[in-house]
Amino acid sequence: MTNPFEPPRRLLLGPGPSDADPRVLRAIAAPLIGHLDPAFLALMDDMKRMLREVFRTENELTFAVSGTGSAGMETCLVNLLEEGDEAVVMVNGEFGRRMTDIAERCRARAVPYDIPWGQAVEPQDVERALASARAPKLVAVVHAETSTGAWSPLQEIAEVVRRSGALLVVDTVTSLGGCPVEVDRWQIDACYSGTQKCLSCPPGLAPVTFGPRAREVMRRRRSKVQSWYLDVSMIEKYWGAERVYHHTAPISMSYALAEALRVVLEEGLEARFDRHRRNHLALAAGLEALGFRYVVEPHRRLWMLNSVYLPPLATGQDEARLRRRLLDEFSIEVGGGLGAFKGKIWRIGLMGESSRREKVLRLLSALDRMLPEAGHAVRPGSGVAAAEACA
Amino acid sequence: MTNPFEPPRRLLLGPGPSDADPRVLRAIAAPLIGHLDPAFLALMDDMKRMLREVFRTENELTFAVSGTGSAGMETCLVNLLEEGDEAVVMVNGEFGRRMTDIAERCRARAVPYDIPWGQAVEPQDVERALASARAPKLVAVVHAETSTGAWSPLQEIAEVVRRSGALLVVDTVTSLGGCPVEVDRWQIDACYSGTQKCLSCPPGLAPVTFGPRAREVMRRRRSKVQSWYLDVSMIEKYWGAERVYHHTAPISMSYALAEALRVVLEEGLEARFDRHRRNHLALAAGLEALGFRYVVEPHRRLWMLNSVYLPPLATGQDEARLRRRLLDEFSIEVGGGLGAFKGKIWRIGLMGESSRREKVLRLLSALDRMLPEAGHAVRPGSGVAAAEACA
Repeated sequence: MTNPFEPPRRLLLGPGPSDADPRVLRAIAAPLIGHLDPAFLALMDDMKRMLREVFRTENELTFAVSGTGSAGMETCLVNLLEEGDEAVVMVNGEFGRRMTDIAERCRARAVPYDIPWGQAVEPQDVERALASARAPKLVAVVHAETSTGAWSPLQEIAEVVRRSGALLVVDTVTSLGGCPVEVDRWQIDACYSGTQKCLSCPPGLAPVTFGPRAREVMRRRRSKVQSWYLDVSMIEKYWGAERVYHHTAPISMSYALAEALRVVLEEGLEARFDRHRRNHLALAAGLEALGFRYVVEPHRRLWMLNSVYLPPLATGQDEARLRRRLLDEFSIEVGGGLGAFKGKIWRIGLMGESSRREKVLRLLSALDRMLPEAGHAVRPGSGVAAAEACA
Repeated sequence: MTNPFEPPRRLLLGPGPSDADPRVLRAIAAPLIGHLDPAFLALMDDMKRMLREVFRTENELTFAVSGTGSAGMETCLVNLLEEGDEAVVMVNGEFGRRMTDIAERCRARAVPYDIPWGQAVEPQDVERALASARAPKLVAVVHAETSTGAWSPLQEIAEVVRRSGALLVVDTVTSLGGCPVEVDRWQIDACYSGTQKCLSCPPGLAPVTFGPRAREVMRRRRSKVQSWYLDVSMIEKYWGAERVYHHTAPISMSYALAEALRVVLEEGLEARFDRHRRNHLALAAGLEALGFRYVVEPHRRLWMLNSVYLPPLATGQDEARLRRRLLDEFSIEVGGGLGAFKGKIWRIGLMGESSRREKVLRLLSALDRMLPEAGHAVRPGSGVAAAEACA
């Protein structure tokens, strides 16, 4: 037999999961009720309503997929794509690449458009990508690339896509709840997210929303959706007035997400965005004072995911070793690089409950102490001082 | 804004979810850690080891899919089937039907073999089904049909399948942890379950295990698995020594499942099975004294899912109304019928933490009081008395 698991107390400043709100952790531990209990059905309705507020949409078809953010991605693509369809995918990091892979598994003709890692997707990129396609059914874009820290200007991109007549599918896994996501105003057709980033909820559910054009495309499908588990035509009857049994909803995670959404809406979206912006600026000031360099140019940097090159270190020191010391000695988690950025950068998340001034200062204070020992000379306390100077 | 959600306190005696163990609800509320934290990787290894004990297998490829039991079903089928493969599916209820649907979405040639609802799958049924197929790649069977309460003799079925050379895929969503499931001894090739039945954990994860023959079939695939999210060739690298990032594991649900498995193994599988058996017999004695009739013949009845026809009721009374009164007045949930059994039967679950003598008596005591008011004459207290007489 093993001993009961007692997780270490961490400060989560990686690419996700981020710290869960304490209220969410209280909510998740409530005793179970049945998934067809009238009280649970009312909770599902509350979740739909609150998700619509957070996505800023009137879309009736707004719910949480019973899987993590990646299941949300797959849900959007498998329901909208059929064999032979053309899908333009903007690829400026790991998650664009993943969408290409999924589109191909749908037997669609994926048209990936590559942009160097660390750069945002710009409207003119989308124009060029569309020009290289024949009759694209959809364009897929990652709003906030968690692998690189780049923030793509979604509103302008949406205008370009709208003019083309293609559907716009957007990954807001890292952006939702941390910076503006305007599903209706920007006319996004399908959008998915995850719970464990700026919503401050454990990972395990994927909020999604589908607009009227996307629903029309799904209604006109010639073939069944290849995934039974993610088939929206069935799931919508479970989340809708009919309550037709599909699968058993994850009860405890639903308690958690409902409470997380309540916390987000009580703070207010605008206040929450502003908090993310301010803490990002404080962190950036501190990191730059310590010799870190941002991967992304200033006006395309995400508030919630800071990707940075490390300052020069002494021989025998590297980012992985430093990151492990940060975890072991200070109990702070930051992320390493993915793909081309592996071993080269850190990804520092300031998401939801993790985007707090005191948490920024705790990280900088640890770096203030660690960097000199790792062979990078800085004046004592310069990281914290720079952040504190940042109003 | 809505008020914080306070779930009603229920006794869950439906087809699932069942009551979660209080220790599991304490574990699920622990603060989050990262999914690549050394402490979390150790927890994943613990889960794999404990899942192997519960499945009674040495299979290295044993883990929890990040979705509910239905995602476990889909995982087994999409990884083993390719276009044009033949899949024999034994259909004696809702879940066999669902496997047929999924197999067809894999573009496999599904060969469903229908058995009347309420009956078990017998070895001779499997022989006949195999005789009607050409070159079946696999045979899929539901061990414990949650929609009907029928318990199929898996060991004998496995022998028939083994002789045919086809793979055996088994649904143990309702059976695992409540009655014997011997993956290695019975030579089951792929097996999936859910967390919310006899494991007494909230719904949201799907334990799965794949044996050597199944792994060989997956290695030899000609095409990519159609689901990216459920692609075992990628997930196994995440759960294996490489820890290659695939998706973010559901942290809190993993805490919960690990604790649930610990509870199961501390009780001991044999003791747990015996508890399920004894409580089923007590419930059956009580229900029969009250005029309920079992759908399934005695030697094929599940211990954990009791499907019963109701006694005759007065005009204007029906099962749905009685079930709703049981929920509203006694806060006890039991399930109604699915498909052909809708409106005709109740499904009473005694799963995991819900399979307790005091819970059986609480239900019978409520029925003792409700049935006379609903127009079915019984002597006061006869349900409870019959159960108590059952040693």
